[in-house]
Amino acid sequence: MKITHIEHIGIAVESIDEAIPFYEKVLGLKCYKVEEIEDQKVKTAFFMVGQTKIELLESTSPDGPIGKFIEKKGPGIHHLAFAVDNTNESLNELDKKGIRLIDKEGRKGAEGLNIGFVHPKSTLGVLTEICSCD
Amino acid sequence: MKITHIEHIGIAVESIDEAIPFYEKVLGLKCYKVEEIEDQKVKTAFFMVGQTKIELLESTSPDGPIGKFIEKKGPGIHHLAFAVDNTNESLNELDKKGIRLIDKEGRKGAEGLNIGFVHPKSTLGVLTEICSCD
Repeated sequence: MKITHIEHIGIAVESIDEAIPFYEKVLGLKCYKVEEIEDQKVKTAFFMVGQTKIELLESTSPDGPIGKFIEKKGPGIHHLAFAVDNTNESLNELDKKGIRLIDKEGRKGAEGLNIGFVHPKSTLGVLTEICSCD
Repeated sequence: MKITHIEHIGIAVESIDEAIPFYEKVLGLKCYKVEEIEDQKVKTAFFMVGQTKIELLESTSPDGPIGKFIEKKGPGIHHLAFAVDNTNESLNELDKKGIRLIDKEGRKGAEGLNIGFVHPKSTLGVLTEICSCD
């Protein structure tokens, strides 16, 4: 598996409408897209910071993954996403190394990327996503 | 304040000696430095991923910030560090905007950078560091 860069950092927020002004007016970043991903029960907002995106995540349902995360831990950094050449090949490689996967194969995520999640129990507590453009 | 890129992502780990093989053998990244920062009571290990570093943080004392973090939340992503042109100017700007600061002025951090921390209560739950080479 060849990781080229950090594709994005996912941050759980209570409200995207409240969070965007903080990222824009305080940090000086620019929101370039807001996108709802129905099957993940989230609304997302994206900011480019160098070669990495910040992906804000607001839950659209209390029983979605972000809703549960915020209920348990409060708002904050939710996951780390590495860019790889090929998500499916990388997931296979991780599987062979005995790493616990949430997604056995890639699925369509935000921005049309092919994404897969790795379980934090196998990644020292960090919910890890790998993603590629294929 | 002009953020140029994500300088590093700080990840709290129980043991750097156990974490380095995971980052190297599973993720294929290369540890280029291990450094102890006495006044922060941490031992750090660095990996370059594109233009961003991953900074693993192992506590050298239970009463240090990383020791307390792991006791409360378990291992995982601890903070996000933005690269800026000038840390002191950026801290002043944030202060004037009413943002709660942990460091009112920059201090020397890992890799010789001038760093300052912003309180997560003012950054929507994300412990945020800003840093520069000056």
